[in-house]
Amino acid sequence: ILFLFMQLYHVLGQNEMLQKKKNAVLVDGVILNGPIMDSKAGEKFVEEACKIIMEEVIQKADDVTEKVCEWQAPETLKQILDLEMRDTGESHQKLLQLCRDVIQYSVKTSHPRFFNQLYAGIDYYSLVARFITEALNPSVYTYEVSPVFLLVEEAVIKKMIEFIGWEEGDGIFNPGGSVSNMYAMNLARYKFCPEIKEKGLSGLPRLVLFTSEECHYSMKKAASFLGIGTENVYFIKTDERGKMIPEELEKQVQRARKEGSAPFLVCATAGTTVLGAFDPLDKIADICEKHGLWLHVDASWGGSALISRKHCRLLHGIHRADSVAWNPHKMLLAGIQCCALLVKDNSGLLKKCYSAKAAYLFQQDKFYDVSYDTGDKSIQCSRRPDAFKFWLMWKALGTTGLEERVNRALALARYLVEEIKKREGFQLLLEVSKNGTELLLLLGRVAPIIKERMMKKGSMMLGYQPHQGKVNFFRQVVISPHVSREDMDFLLDEIELLAKDL
Amino acid sequence: ILFLFMQLYHVLGQNEMLQKKKNAVLVDGVILNGPIMDSKAGEKFVEEACKIIMEEVIQKADDVTEKVCEWQAPETLKQILDLEMRDTGESHQKLLQLCRDVIQYSVKTSHPRFFNQLYAGIDYYSLVARFITEALNPSVYTYEVSPVFLLVEEAVIKKMIEFIGWEEGDGIFNPGGSVSNMYAMNLARYKFCPEIKEKGLSGLPRLVLFTSEECHYSMKKAASFLGIGTENVYFIKTDERGKMIPEELEKQVQRARKEGSAPFLVCATAGTTVLGAFDPLDKIADICEKHGLWLHVDASWGGSALISRKHCRLLHGIHRADSVAWNPHKMLLAGIQCCALLVKDNSGLLKKCYSAKAAYLFQQDKFYDVSYDTGDKSIQCSRRPDAFKFWLMWKALGTTGLEERVNRALALARYLVEEIKKREGFQLLLEVSKNGTELLLLLGRVAPIIKERMMKKGSMMLGYQPHQGKVNFFRQVVISPHVSREDMDFLLDEIELLAKDL
Repeated sequence: ILFLFMQLYHVLGQNEMLQKKKNAVLVDGVILNGPIMDSKAGEKFVEEACKIIMEEVIQKADDVTEKVCEWQAPETLKQILDLEMRDTGESHQKLLQLCRDVIQYSVKTSHPRFFNQLYAGIDYYSLVARFITEALNPSVYTYEVSPVFLLVEEAVIKKMIEFIGWEEGDGIFNPGGSVSNMYAMNLARYKFCPEIKEKGLSGLPRLVLFTSEECHYSMKKAASFLGIGTENVYFIKTDERGKMIPEELEKQVQRARKEGSAPFLVCATAGTTVLGAFDPLDKIADICEKHGLWLHVDASWGGSALISRKHCRLLHGIHRADSVAWNPHKMLLAGIQCCALLVKDNSGLLKKCYSAKAAYLFQQDKFYDVSYDTGDKSIQCSRRPDAFKFWLMWKALGTTGLEERVNRALALARYLVEEIKKREGFQLLLEVSKNGTELLLLLGRVAPIIKERMMKKGSMMLGYQPHQGKVNFFRQVVISPHVSREDMDFLLDEIELLAKDL
Repeated sequence: ILFLFMQLYHVLGQNEMLQKKKNAVLVDGVILNGPIMDSKAGEKFVEEACKIIMEEVIQKADDVTEKVCEWQAPETLKQILDLEMRDTGESHQKLLQLCRDVIQYSVKTSHPRFFNQLYAGIDYYSLVARFITEALNPSVYTYEVSPVFLLVEEAVIKKMIEFIGWEEGDGIFNPGGSVSNMYAMNLARYKFCPEIKEKGLSGLPRLVLFTSEECHYSMKKAASFLGIGTENVYFIKTDERGKMIPEELEKQVQRARKEGSAPFLVCATAGTTVLGAFDPLDKIADICEKHGLWLHVDASWGGSALISRKHCRLLHGIHRADSVAWNPHKMLLAGIQCCALLVKDNSGLLKKCYSAKAAYLFQQDKFYDVSYDTGDKSIQCSRRPDAFKFWLMWKALGTTGLEERVNRALALARYLVEEIKKREGFQLLLEVSKNGTELLLLLGRVAPIIKERMMKKGSMMLGYQPHQGKVNFFRQVVISPHVSREDMDFLLDEIELLAKDL
């Protein structure tokens, strides 16, 4: 083990300082004097690459005349990229060309016409925070190695809790909404029966949780990962807008009780992935209270509406939740990944549930207040300082600037709705009648063709999918503050153009 | 729901393209024409911030006359940083000053004298890849949105599998060694009993796994998170160097069988966190084969030794493992986080175990080969392209350049061992005799004092801890190629200097 690690004991009573000049030292065939890196050449390489990033990515981010993507089939792209890692390294010139290629053939998710995912656009402030993070390469677990980022995370969590409406609480940034949902599920389970941490689920009655049939797929992944099992996720029916029906929830909870299983958790969704539905949190909270169930709200997508005084009513009742997942990397552009799991409990539940008390990291005899060492609240060891990007962006824009983004995104969506209603040949999914099934089936085959054409042209990107028995339709996501009414008009014109011979 | 999401049906037979000029549009009080961001000002801000990052972080990374950290107590630092997020935003000038402050008070993990963690140093190539990643803001799940990064991940995983010595395999980059270990534990459980995915653990016999008492604390976290329970982790005794004793493993497996529980997994460690021990993989693999147990190797720290022809023997037998966790962000400087979970199975086990088949993301009627859409192998939805940093660094340095880093780190460690042996007042932990317990107890109180002094001075950072009944000692980690023999000498001189009045 001495090959990799040094352990040294320092012994008292050594008062003299030894300082000897030594000559070149050779150990195991390696010369150990001086560093082996050419720092100046390295710095120059970084500078040149930064220039490319600035010109090819950042300055083009608002340019609609640029392509959103430059489509290449996998086998062709493999040839272009020269993926092979070899014994000897490449020249800086070759590497810079590789960087250019990587940029050229990557999808420009910051392009104003990238509407494909629940993230889009560029925010200059969070981007700067991200560059700082990468350069500093921190890991957030102890105050001694991440003093700034731990304090920033604390401040951001406090502020997010204010917007949820809790008087106090706790939280942790983690790698995504899916992982946040897992955190919540495990926390609810721990609260339900703390012994599971040590004893596991073997021999216990079947734990059951409830979520709407429109929930994110991470609920199933979480139930499977946590050993609960996907069959023990009871999916609650939704109304025609995709919102959980509280009466159906009540029925399912009663069914679970009759079966002798152990209901412990309801996961409501604030902003479902496909339809953007907000579950009626207040009514769901009533049922949770009545039955003593933990209420988790997956507000990964919709949580950012809390920032808007106009639209926060969509999440009315969220203050009654026990935990909330909220991803500022989606509607607020904080950059992937920036996701918080927030918990109403302030009695240290998060730490009790997750701690493993590693002595090498969380020494209790440190010279500062070790309550700042929050790493033991996490399922991770190394953890990125994701709160920092949100913080710098918030400092830059202020709450009003963030609010403006949300209001504008929603106003643009409303504008598009009205335009679609006016246009012949377009229909809103939720207004389609059930008649004419054959035509609908035929229609379902149109979206993939339009999608293929738009990607090969590179003019925009927009997702399609089938959903709950309905055939393929386009799902338009509006987020970026670089998007304007003109892009909405373009979107409809371009779909028409791409489909004109179909 | 129409507030946040648009769903549109495109109807056949619309052949004319409508293009109308429109005037300013006001919806919900928001003017929708043109973007609301000042791109030019934003770009200028990024440029100015990049200049600060270059001067204050990157150019200083190799400068030993700079401080490793500028210690401030939490309450003081809170005042300095002006953490409060307000309604109105700050000026660019104020924001740039905040960036400077964040950098100033953050620990310089790339400083040649940061020896505190299992990561350190700066690599210019992976840093460039990280900047590209942040600017492009990709998420790796489907080929349509991440063509380049999916191919890169595939190539890197293939190469890592070669070094492990498997003929084929599969893998996924994920947010850390802890999460990699969870992936492996769940995968082993799925292989043991696929029904657990749907049914959960309730009503099943107690699942038991084995790992050494020197394993990383994530094993306990994983067992708890996955519903297995920490008591069902059977810790195997280690020898005086911290290596798992195979005979003890055999005994524990037999004990578990006698108890009627269900052994399913052995987690060996290749490079333990505190002592850097490598478990005897070949002998452990024999036992796993005999008992039909999944063998996972947590090589988060030590995996990078596979790159060195001289030191890969430390992991002899790793090709017999069913899964391996390996973090290139540690010894190889790929930047946090860069972690792969690699799996020997090539029959799609990873996908079968983790899939949730979300129709909105993994449409099967796409126009390209959807086997490139690997997102359903993951517990995450959004996922960062961590393989890319490792790839660009590997392209730049070649395998021989990576090998040189490993060889040099180990040679420097060996040099330090010899120097410690020569110096009065220092002792190697593993050579300390059990005699003189009172002196040892007193000694245990020295490390925290030295640590406090070194942090307040900012001259270097080095971790201490107690371990398995032994009192506090310093743990020296050598990784960065910027470190030279001179820094090793400085380390010992500085400890003497800081402790001279003790």
